Amino acid sequence: MSTERSPLALPFPELPAIAGVTPRIARARYKTWDRCDLTFVTLDPGTAVAGVLTQSRCPSPEVEWCRKALGLGRARALVVNAGNSNAFTGDRGRAAVENLAAKTARHLGCDPSDVFLASTGVIGVPLPIDKSEAGLAAAFAAEPCSWEAAAETIMTTDTFAKAAVTRAVVDGRTVNLVGIIKGSGMIAPDMATMLGFVFTDAAAEPEFLQAALAEANRTSFSCITVDGDTSTSDTILAFATGTAGNAPLTGDDDAGADAFRAALADLCHQLALLVVRDGEGAQKLIEITVEGAESDRSAHRIAMSIANSPLVKTAIAGEDANWGRVVMAVGKAGEPAERDRLAIRFGATQVARNGLAVSGYDEAPVAAHLKGREIAIGVDLGLGDGRATVWTCDLTHGYISINADYRS
Amino acid sequence: MSTERSPLALPFPELPAIAGVTPRIARARYKTWDRCDLTFVTLDPGTAVAGVLTQSRCPSPEVEWCRKALGLGRARALVVNAGNSNAFTGDRGRAAVENLAAKTARHLGCDPSDVFLASTGVIGVPLPIDKSEAGLAAAFAAEPCSWEAAAETIMTTDTFAKAAVTRAVVDGRTVNLVGIIKGSGMIAPDMATMLGFVFTDAAAEPEFLQAALAEANRTSFSCITVDGDTSTSDTILAFATGTAGNAPLTGDDDAGADAFRAALADLCHQLALLVVRDGEGAQKLIEITVEGAESDRSAHRIAMSIANSPLVKTAIAGEDANWGRVVMAVGKAGEPAERDRLAIRFGATQVARNGLAVSGYDEAPVAAHLKGREIAIGVDLGLGDGRATVWTCDLTHGYISINADYRS
Repeated sequence: MSTERSPLALPFPELPAIAGVTPRIARARYKTWDRCDLTFVTLDPGTAVAGVLTQSRCPSPEVEWCRKALGLGRARALVVNAGNSNAFTGDRGRAAVENLAAKTARHLGCDPSDVFLASTGVIGVPLPIDKSEAGLAAAFAAEPCSWEAAAETIMTTDTFAKAAVTRAVVDGRTVNLVGIIKGSGMIAPDMATMLGFVFTDAAAEPEFLQAALAEANRTSFSCITVDGDTSTSDTILAFATGTAGNAPLTGDDDAGADAFRAALADLCHQLALLVVRDGEGAQKLIEITVEGAESDRSAHRIAMSIANSPLVKTAIAGEDANWGRVVMAVGKAGEPAERDRLAIRFGATQVARNGLAVSGYDEAPVAAHLKGREIAIGVDLGLGDGRATVWTCDLTHGYISINADYRS
Repeated sequence: MSTERSPLALPFPELPAIAGVTPRIARARYKTWDRCDLTFVTLDPGTAVAGVLTQSRCPSPEVEWCRKALGLGRARALVVNAGNSNAFTGDRGRAAVENLAAKTARHLGCDPSDVFLASTGVIGVPLPIDKSEAGLAAAFAAEPCSWEAAAETIMTTDTFAKAAVTRAVVDGRTVNLVGIIKGSGMIAPDMATMLGFVFTDAAAEPEFLQAALAEANRTSFSCITVDGDTSTSDTILAFATGTAGNAPLTGDDDAGADAFRAALADLCHQLALLVVRDGEGAQKLIEITVEGAESDRSAHRIAMSIANSPLVKTAIAGEDANWGRVVMAVGKAGEPAERDRLAIRFGATQVARNGLAVSGYDEAPVAAHLKGREIAIGVDLGLGDGRATVWTCDLTHGYISINADYRS
């Protein structure tokens, strides 16, 4: 796997403890590596849970398990395996999930449906039950660990541990929100992305938490792509322990509901951007804003067409101001667009307007912008009020090196 | 540009002359290269023409010109510029096209609408009229050239000249069909691909020729992808001079119509595969067959989801039997699929069935297959009778090298 830290990495933030949440880690040795790869988080009784999961037609049994358990709205534990996604493994994979849930439920004295699971890694190899059982038993016996240790333990091809923090005032109480996430390749979330876990001490009913998470997802995880490939295991779960003592949030009209929703959206946005910053082989973070589209949905699709274009991404990798490839990606998106109204911006420089390069176009400021780590591309379609922003990274030799020999 | 010949290249075939078709080439010097880059083909009076063009919302003025001229159904000349696509260049680009058509029409004594044009290369730079005029004048004065010279002159990042030939018996006469094509990157044809030109001495009415070409396109150019990026200039034109002397083909019930349609479909299939064989950076040709889908259309979309997945393509590049990525690509396609009915084949080896690896799966024959140049992936969804085959190439460091610095 890649070992060099992404040049776009951010330092691990200072995170508060969330009362009612206790992470532990252990070695299950799912791969021939000497690192922890099983994360076990206990949650106080009464913790509400919400989640968004991959829309893949070939989901992992963990995703199916979570989808079912989310209906009950309560959680007591989270178990995350790194190094094996357990996807596409039939009855053996399902049995491995049921076994982990049952063992954890027995340990905590709760129902198996209170246990949430996620696994990440190679597809098609059943999670080895002997290793997961031994890892889980070790985690039961382990001392509580730091957020950073937990964030490191859920990593696969990630080159840095990822977390974010925010807070809000709800019902006169300050509530904390902390999230950890992993993801680097196979990132094109379809309503969710890779594995991310949000913990808050706020009190919130599961229905409210689910609605707030779905809303936050629309402007965060659903707006990033590394390679256009959607995982079989994408999972974002949010756990609210209620230990902050606010009156439980039940709907958008409650005092503090807006503040909590905004804080959750901010946290999810931070987490999503961290994934792009660790995109496989990434050297540059690219923000693509499309406006003037016929609708927000149309703007999003055009922005994603640009963000997923290998020719746009390789041009950015080469620091090449080849804006014609943006024209190409708008043209192929299958959405309403009129060539002769199209305007394109790189950084602060307008490069094209009304269907051709601006008069007296000077490439120098664009070339300078492209030498930086954070690249901005703006497209104005000149048709309506639809608007969207998405984030991606460049496509480099690093991506090829990482993925041409992933399993070895 | 890339100079190493694709390892998947085929030798240039022996091509017959097509009576009524005369190619010539010249140096317009659209780039700082010492090679011919303007192709000029004259066609005898009465030549029928048909075409399929990019569905991009940002088409080049050449594409718009051809779309309009195709309505008249007759052609006297073809002019192809390599090194500059003239796309997204506003009024100056349109003027360049009108100027070339007018100059050619004056030279031949025909209408400008009898002149078909195509350009390929960088987007966003108007075709320089002084260079194109000088190149065209040189071509008017040049000796006729070989098919191979014409096929070389339309190349850009291509590493080998591409042509195909076939024949059919129509109305008791043997008719010849010859095609030349270019294309290597920005290949995800949306009803057409890059620049390809088919010449036949068959006599055919334009409406018949158009229907036959559209039908051939559905199983050839519409079934290939190199990088999922659709060009602003994709153009396939078919010219039928009628010099073979058969009674002109007017409809599917005519004698020889079936033979001609089959021959045209065969020719287009050959040409499309040549483009994939010269995909930028390609080391392996990948054939993906999806069957058991709910419809042919659904099968096609799933096959394209696999063919455009960078993770599948990098795994093939790495000769890595990571079939889980095929599962991922089926799952993300947004088409009906049931994980637990899915079966996957690599070469002749069944690797997965009913939602998991086959019992006793042995990777050795798959690994051996992946070491070859031609890779076959089969997917059976187990849902219905829908079927599709598409072709792509692997994604290698070569693609990144070629495209991270295309313009320099």
